[in-house]
Amino acid sequence: MSQPKASNLTFHIGELSREARTRAHGHRGVTLWLTGLSGSGKSTLSHRVERLLTERGVFAYVLDGDNVRHGLNRDLGFAPEDRTENIRRVGQVAKLFTDAGAVVLTAFISPYREDRASVRATMPEGDFLEVHVAAGLDVCETRDVKGLYKKARAGEIPDFTGISAPYEEPEAPELRVDTGSQDVDASAREVIAYLEAQGYLSAG
Amino acid sequence: MSQPKASNLTFHIGELSREARTRAHGHRGVTLWLTGLSGSGKSTLSHRVERLLTERGVFAYVLDGDNVRHGLNRDLGFAPEDRTENIRRVGQVAKLFTDAGAVVLTAFISPYREDRASVRATMPEGDFLEVHVAAGLDVCETRDVKGLYKKARAGEIPDFTGISAPYEEPEAPELRVDTGSQDVDASAREVIAYLEAQGYLSAG
Repeated sequence: MSQPKASNLTFHIGELSREARTRAHGHRGVTLWLTGLSGSGKSTLSHRVERLLTERGVFAYVLDGDNVRHGLNRDLGFAPEDRTENIRRVGQVAKLFTDAGAVVLTAFISPYREDRASVRATMPEGDFLEVHVAAGLDVCETRDVKGLYKKARAGEIPDFTGISAPYEEPEAPELRVDTGSQDVDASAREVIAYLEAQGYLSAG
Repeated sequence: MSQPKASNLTFHIGELSREARTRAHGHRGVTLWLTGLSGSGKSTLSHRVERLLTERGVFAYVLDGDNVRHGLNRDLGFAPEDRTENIRRVGQVAKLFTDAGAVVLTAFISPYREDRASVRATMPEGDFLEVHVAAGLDVCETRDVKGLYKKARAGEIPDFTGISAPYEEPEAPELRVDTGSQDVDASAREVIAYLEAQGYLSAG
């Protein structure tokens, strides 16, 4: 939609600028939007990065199905329009965390390019980093940690990404992490090294 | 509703406990839920507290109409069911910020006891503090900073809290701040003194 429904609203000039927050925190706010197949390691990787960043004094947080689907988005199911609204809301929450100055990691399959592009479009340049958690379908299906691929192949789960629903790979992600061939520590180091190289972890 | 629509979900054990976050940040996460009439000073007070806390190294953030109504809740209007959903979503986002370890201040009129109680019920004990921003209707209407009371009296704004819709005062808020008779600095000091006294601003 192009206009919010609510009228009588003006944007309030907060007392804190983004720059002031960055100076106070010693790091920038940013969204790391992880996308990849079920079982590719999005949740594991994001929680590892969160822990490593938190231990070094960076305010970091993971949004994933566990803390969003049961709460904010508990009114949504898995129909296409619900999936789109799920991603939209997660994007808006990530935007709030980023504005607050946090490094927020989102861990959702988010299979559609259009949905991811829509989230990117809501944020200022540089606030949204797309991270392709790139384990192939063969690897994910062989691991099948939750047994979901087996169920999907048996037709017990409809519209399962990679099996009976498409996964649209990112064409130009800021970062591609090969979680199919390296362990979570190596992948986490790659993510953090990228943030450091791009200046997100300092106030300068 | 009693059950989330989405199945195939399990709660993921994150790598970081609340306690570990508190130690790393040097303070606890908590929601300060400000409630009060239009013009009572919720937004001004919350932004002042946010700035003072941020300057002393506490990760703080304000959720208000300005950053929520235009984004996350842009699909919602002001009909009763939309107002309730607005508060529900804000509550869920506040819960996420609190879980992340932030001091989050919400600045919404939130006139109904039941809506506020519903938000409180979603959070662990001690995570939700109700703050009554207690300027009386006479004061708020005399100030009428945005000219909304004048419009409401003229019948141009339907269901305006305090004029043509009820405001249900908190019966037992954790804190009541008299913004009708003292300035924003005094009010902000009261809020911060309360947080200090209750141990929210230290990791101990």
